[in-house]
Amino acid sequence: MSLITALETSDIRFPTSLLLDGSDAMNPDPDYSAAYVRLVTDASDGLEGHGFVFTIGRGNDVQVAAIDALADHVVGRDVDELLGAMGRTWRELVHDSQLRWLGPEKGVMHMAIGAVVDALWDLKAKRAGLPLWRLLAEMSPEQLVELVDFRYLTDDLTEADALRILRRAEPGRRERTERLLAEGYPAYTTTPGWLGYDDAKLARLSREAVTEGFGQIKLKVGADLDDDVRRLGIAREAVGPGIRIAVDANQRWDRDDAIAWIERLAPFGLAWVEEPTSPDDVLAHAAIARAIAPVPVATGEHMGGRVMAKQFLQADALGVLQIDATRVAGVNENLAMLLLAAKHGVPVCPHAGGVGLCERVQHLSYLDYIAVSGEIDGRMIEFVDHLHEHFVTPVEVTDGRYRAPSSPGSGAEMRETSRSEYRYRGTDV
Amino acid sequence: MSLITALETSDIRFPTSLLLDGSDAMNPDPDYSAAYVRLVTDASDGLEGHGFVFTIGRGNDVQVAAIDALADHVVGRDVDELLGAMGRTWRELVHDSQLRWLGPEKGVMHMAIGAVVDALWDLKAKRAGLPLWRLLAEMSPEQLVELVDFRYLTDDLTEADALRILRRAEPGRRERTERLLAEGYPAYTTTPGWLGYDDAKLARLSREAVTEGFGQIKLKVGADLDDDVRRLGIAREAVGPGIRIAVDANQRWDRDDAIAWIERLAPFGLAWVEEPTSPDDVLAHAAIARAIAPVPVATGEHMGGRVMAKQFLQADALGVLQIDATRVAGVNENLAMLLLAAKHGVPVCPHAGGVGLCERVQHLSYLDYIAVSGEIDGRMIEFVDHLHEHFVTPVEVTDGRYRAPSSPGSGAEMRETSRSEYRYRGTDV
Repeated sequence: MSLITALETSDIRFPTSLLLDGSDAMNPDPDYSAAYVRLVTDASDGLEGHGFVFTIGRGNDVQVAAIDALADHVVGRDVDELLGAMGRTWRELVHDSQLRWLGPEKGVMHMAIGAVVDALWDLKAKRAGLPLWRLLAEMSPEQLVELVDFRYLTDDLTEADALRILRRAEPGRRERTERLLAEGYPAYTTTPGWLGYDDAKLARLSREAVTEGFGQIKLKVGADLDDDVRRLGIAREAVGPGIRIAVDANQRWDRDDAIAWIERLAPFGLAWVEEPTSPDDVLAHAAIARAIAPVPVATGEHMGGRVMAKQFLQADALGVLQIDATRVAGVNENLAMLLLAAKHGVPVCPHAGGVGLCERVQHLSYLDYIAVSGEIDGRMIEFVDHLHEHFVTPVEVTDGRYRAPSSPGSGAEMRETSRSEYRYRGTDV
Repeated sequence: MSLITALETSDIRFPTSLLLDGSDAMNPDPDYSAAYVRLVTDASDGLEGHGFVFTIGRGNDVQVAAIDALADHVVGRDVDELLGAMGRTWRELVHDSQLRWLGPEKGVMHMAIGAVVDALWDLKAKRAGLPLWRLLAEMSPEQLVELVDFRYLTDDLTEADALRILRRAEPGRRERTERLLAEGYPAYTTTPGWLGYDDAKLARLSREAVTEGFGQIKLKVGADLDDDVRRLGIAREAVGPGIRIAVDANQRWDRDDAIAWIERLAPFGLAWVEEPTSPDDVLAHAAIARAIAPVPVATGEHMGGRVMAKQFLQADALGVLQIDATRVAGVNENLAMLLLAAKHGVPVCPHAGGVGLCERVQHLSYLDYIAVSGEIDGRMIEFVDHLHEHFVTPVEVTDGRYRAPSSPGSGAEMRETSRSEYRYRGTDV
């Protein structure tokens, strides 16, 4: 028997605001950060579980404190007991009745639970000698269903529905795994489109995206309408008519502003409109979706959890679900969201970028493709070529496609030198 | 000119779980706690601003860390500048682009902002020599509107709508203030109904509630249907047919379970059904509300913010809005919620109890009565006779009615001896 002997946290911040990488209409100067957790055991294999919550700077310390508050749930516990029933482990953390008050099931405490749950998944995958996607995609439908908490979902998705979805995808698993390994998984790039970049840089990066094989780029919009019209024109000219252009407003608009603004941008041909308004506003998104159809609404990176995902799908308030690796309570809750999307026939195109989000969220898309929706058409993972060098197994994107990793683990492990170098020391980064 | 010289936090926990006070279907053993903040200035008046976030034990330290993360926004700042434009101050805190990532606008970080905002309101009221309710209810419609951030609300409530509502209530302000001072404001009591109490205690406390003048009691339900039926029968017999009985499921049910369960309880005559399911689930609440009409759904104590309040009202998903003093970003956001409720003609009956929630939330109900909805019929504030002795100006409830306080401030200030005695020292309380 081996025990978890330590839950060690660190506050890691990269000074990304200095270059305006990541600048958008709501986030002018993010410092991409990780509230990082490392689980250590006394097993002779020396394996560790790593996880983190992505934040954009200030408040990363609060997120670290929230992870620390979970130590009693894991330290001193039997590793096999925790890893052997990850559904039960998830429920124990999420249903801690006192901690639950702080959400419930959303926000800082919920994301902290996600970091710890995913550090356990990282450890489990390393112990199995498999990349996380493969560990998950080889679980039986019954094992996968056991990971999901159906509380608050049953008016839309029951355990029986989930089993049906997973069994439907069972026959083609092997073929899709081979296809994934051979051909990769589509990526799109947000690199050209940050608001802080000038027109020349936008045009140059847009052309480079096409050269690099991407079929879709994304532009940040929402700060100034005339600027957006001009920038979209530049981007459209740079990429030509055959490349998809999505726009992302980062929650900048109210409902009616969104509809009016998008009407001006629609002539450039929009792949989707992302985060038009408050991520909590199901009804406004539904109204926007009706108004801008057939252009789909995309949202999810700030979606508090599975209950919100359920409602957005029930209300036809989104056409693209953008799960995020660290916004919800880890792999288990993201699996619930994949199942909800599959039930409604809506494609999942994860949010990524930041620091380490590409490394992590790819595993969930592969799981979706192999064992949940069984689909890849119309699906793609966001890609930003940024900060990957800090990870032990950096993401590999070539010819506009993610290449599925073979290294064991979840992809969350940051190099020790990077963790040390970018450890926040209490002054502005 | 005077400056804010310190933001001092403390982690205060009361061992309420030992007596099962506060036990319900989701919270079997809460330890009522306060993540407490004290703002100190260098002014010669010696006045301080006090505020806190209510939690139920574990995680109170995380909430304290979130308040600490706001120190740079207030320490060293000009007191008059902050207090003189409380709308601007609120926006500065809520729209900190990096901290916003942790919500956005909900959960731990948002509640922390509420504690700091309300500590500023406490200071402002003390400097004015007025109880907070009076300070607010004497502001002009224009001044009140300036406190509200209409972002994400304009599809339902514009600044012009809000002005209209406030101006409509202007004529009767003085008369209602006098009536409030003379007659008090209706209270209802949750004291009899905790799940941890046995039948004899339930019957005794129910009878006492009637003797004490309460027109409504509330029972916790949702753990076991047969128990609930039996307990409701006992309570109904104890109070007689003329007293209203509300039930509170504390989010225990899924949508269809809620509807079936309530059908069994409805024959006892229900004043409202509180928190039937996830507080984030607008659509499920709307379905439940349609199914159980004319019994109204009540919710709000876990409502993340004004965007959720707006949707619940737009979807007719609640018939009673239960604002909470410390769940959202303070007085400003609760004012937005009062305005939304007034627009939709829905009564506001605040959640209280816990520790210090009665002391604080009463101010908002008086504001609602005097200057917003102008209504008192069908309105009441929850009351639990618990932990009031720890406050400098404890709430006064006699003959089933809250008595409006005349002491300056918001009611949030806890006695120094209590803050010291119940300061959490890192072991189980």
